[in-house]
Amino acid sequence: MNYGMIRYITGKMLLVEAILMLLPVFVSLLYQEDSGVYFVIVAAELAALSLILSKKKPEDTSLYAKEGFVIVALAWILWSAFGALPFVLGGSIPRFVDAFFETVSGFTTTGSTILTDIESLPMGMNFWRCFTHWIGGMGVLVFVMTILPLSSKNSMFLMRAEMPGPTCDKLVPKARSTARILYGIYIVLSAAEVIFLLAGGMNLYDALVHTFSTAGTGGFDNRNANVAFYDSAYIDGVITVFMLLFGINFSLYYLMLLKNFKAAFKSEELRAYLGIVAASIALITVNIVHIYGNVLKSFRYAAFQVASVITTTGFVTVNFDLWPEFSKTILLIIMAIGACAGSTGGGMKVSRIIILARTVTKEIRQVLHPKSVNVVRLDGKRLTDENTRGVYVYMICYMAILALSVLLISVDNFDFTTNFTAVLTTLNNVGPGLAGVGPVENFSAYSWFSKLVLSLDMLLGRLEILPLLMLFTPRTWRKRF
Amino acid sequence: MNYGMIRYITGKMLLVEAILMLLPVFVSLLYQEDSGVYFVIVAAELAALSLILSKKKPEDTSLYAKEGFVIVALAWILWSAFGALPFVLGGSIPRFVDAFFETVSGFTTTGSTILTDIESLPMGMNFWRCFTHWIGGMGVLVFVMTILPLSSKNSMFLMRAEMPGPTCDKLVPKARSTARILYGIYIVLSAAEVIFLLAGGMNLYDALVHTFSTAGTGGFDNRNANVAFYDSAYIDGVITVFMLLFGINFSLYYLMLLKNFKAAFKSEELRAYLGIVAASIALITVNIVHIYGNVLKSFRYAAFQVASVITTTGFVTVNFDLWPEFSKTILLIIMAIGACAGSTGGGMKVSRIIILARTVTKEIRQVLHPKSVNVVRLDGKRLTDENTRGVYVYMICYMAILALSVLLISVDNFDFTTNFTAVLTTLNNVGPGLAGVGPVENFSAYSWFSKLVLSLDMLLGRLEILPLLMLFTPRTWRKRF
Repeated sequence: MNYGMIRYITGKMLLVEAILMLLPVFVSLLYQEDSGVYFVIVAAELAALSLILSKKKPEDTSLYAKEGFVIVALAWILWSAFGALPFVLGGSIPRFVDAFFETVSGFTTTGSTILTDIESLPMGMNFWRCFTHWIGGMGVLVFVMTILPLSSKNSMFLMRAEMPGPTCDKLVPKARSTARILYGIYIVLSAAEVIFLLAGGMNLYDALVHTFSTAGTGGFDNRNANVAFYDSAYIDGVITVFMLLFGINFSLYYLMLLKNFKAAFKSEELRAYLGIVAASIALITVNIVHIYGNVLKSFRYAAFQVASVITTTGFVTVNFDLWPEFSKTILLIIMAIGACAGSTGGGMKVSRIIILARTVTKEIRQVLHPKSVNVVRLDGKRLTDENTRGVYVYMICYMAILALSVLLISVDNFDFTTNFTAVLTTLNNVGPGLAGVGPVENFSAYSWFSKLVLSLDMLLGRLEILPLLMLFTPRTWRKRF
Repeated sequence: MNYGMIRYITGKMLLVEAILMLLPVFVSLLYQEDSGVYFVIVAAELAALSLILSKKKPEDTSLYAKEGFVIVALAWILWSAFGALPFVLGGSIPRFVDAFFETVSGFTTTGSTILTDIESLPMGMNFWRCFTHWIGGMGVLVFVMTILPLSSKNSMFLMRAEMPGPTCDKLVPKARSTARILYGIYIVLSAAEVIFLLAGGMNLYDALVHTFSTAGTGGFDNRNANVAFYDSAYIDGVITVFMLLFGINFSLYYLMLLKNFKAAFKSEELRAYLGIVAASIALITVNIVHIYGNVLKSFRYAAFQVASVITTTGFVTVNFDLWPEFSKTILLIIMAIGACAGSTGGGMKVSRIIILARTVTKEIRQVLHPKSVNVVRLDGKRLTDENTRGVYVYMICYMAILALSVLLISVDNFDFTTNFTAVLTTLNNVGPGLAGVGPVENFSAYSWFSKLVLSLDMLLGRLEILPLLMLFTPRTWRKRF
């Protein structure tokens, strides 16, 4: 284990967070609030700590998969812990465990909140809260990589550990260039959404905050009523479309930039994703039409909610906890499925579901015709045994964590629907659940212990389990290899 | 596909059911009821049908895995369909879909019921209802095999398709002898329980009915209050111990018969099973002690309920739906884990959980030390890739069926806890769930559609998915190989 490099990169990473905190300082100044001072304090601490940690560059700069996982896990935990401090110092969220939950929810783009009155937050504080979504969406370390000079091999291990999905594609040979291309696409799409929202009559602050949330597929908002506040079909429509766009694998946008539209639209994951979205919207629209008495309105709500849940954004325009059980169950299922690999969305990812379905079909075929040779393919490419085993292991860990978390938070004695959906929504980085953690409720009622469990679930969900599992495996730390 | 043999064995199988129906006829005569006549009618129909189907023995008597799965799936569906007829004809359960649900619940040893007043059933009818548990516990076809002369190779395919667990051990070289040894142990254990229950003051009818239910890990009872009716620590204790005994792999009893006690007690599955039972009882006892105000009473209820749920029996001495959420969540988790492979219990089986945990550990080790060679073992034996892949596939199908079933029955618009636990309890062949299908409730409120879905779940759970999946795969029927 290369401790030197872990220390060095962790230090660099804290400096980047310090710099990012200057943004809410600027917003505070603009709105003549004093909340900015807390960000300055924390930024100064971070800078000082960073100076200590990365003063000396280690001689051995090599990284392997193991270090990649550890650095990514540490980065996310530290960014969340320090990112929570301004809320505590400023008194916006007095208890640290609450502020930590909220910041983890921000960086992991979950969007679950413990706040009961969001509108009472200073503008600067809420800007930071939503801005964490934007950074977390594309990846904390991917962001650091666009700035820091690291060897390409080292960057790749970090990128692989942080990028969601069963496989990780480099768009171009250099990992750093890949990171920059990804952030380029991300910024362009975000800018487009800001413009569309401004065109709908939103003010700049609201437009920025909602774009941060949409782009990162987060779900934080500056209004207590969430997106329902605007009650505008145009704004609902714009956000629906952009949520779906941010749920698509970004490498497809790169293909389109290269004018390779055919390859982009042939993506099996994209097709399955759009198919699931269309089917879910259709079923829910039919199922809720008796509530709204109007197909168009039902379609609008259904489309928004389906896009919000499958991309794991978690925006809300209507209290879907009041919908029929069938619609709610569809939402829970697409919550677990999640968006496409390589997007900012969470969940198990559509491509994993495709791989699982195909391997199962293959195995059944093998029983029927023991001598036949069956291969699992995705987009024409043959999947290695390592790929499929990785998906299996992910799936099993996912289920085990789900069961264990529900058990742990059941100590608070809330009902099963609340506990189950609280874990499901945090593990998949969605935001709202059902019943006690439904769309118009929040997570404040849980004990500090349960909040920590759910915070861990958000991190496990965002980092796809392995990095955190590594961090807590004694074997990882045992000796230098 | 050898259609001739499928037809022939199916015919033989129906004859065996006809013979078994003479038992409730005898009980009816004893109690001077006229319910026996309906069993005579159905038995006559079965015998006639059997005569037609297995009149001609096919020339090609070879069977393969594929035929084995199909015959097992057909056997279970037909036995349930015909086994339901006496209830309908006699008016005890007027609607066929309800009677089918009840009979599937019987043969699959689930114990979920749609009856609201069990005590109104004629003695003969209820004897049959509970007797299905006893037959289903060790296996419908395993029972047929003890009687029918089949070639050993053919028997093995049938046995493998029906026996629960990730691997299937033959105790002795001949499958038929294995079947007879298994039934021998089964009968001896059952006789022991009858004697212990009689010693506790139960009458013979009650003792038989409760032994059928315990032995098959079913849960049907002749009392509306279930085992709580007796309110006796002795009877609770006897049933607790026997439920746990019937949840142990029967091949371990065979080892003990051969005086190889050391090997039996070294079984990793047995140790894990006892460990989970002990831990669950301890946690629940502590969690419910404030309700009963007495450690001994809490222990008695906790032990009974844990044994009842992990072995997937489903007997009830107390309304655990009123217990704290933590205890209820433990019950849901051990419900999914289930008993040992090769026992009469259902669920995923402890050995599958062990295999999954070990493969995941192995994969993580592999990431840490890519060049190391890691092997997954159970009881010292190295597991083949085929074994572990089989477990993965089972697990994935299990999750997919769980999600799909909850979605399908959500159309009835009951709450999520009810739907989720209804599917969990039927898929694992337990019996009661929580909320609307809790220990003091029943399944009668569900629509005929949901009852069919849940019946299918019971069959899928008992036959461990593959046979039924085969039955509904068009490819299976396509051509002769």
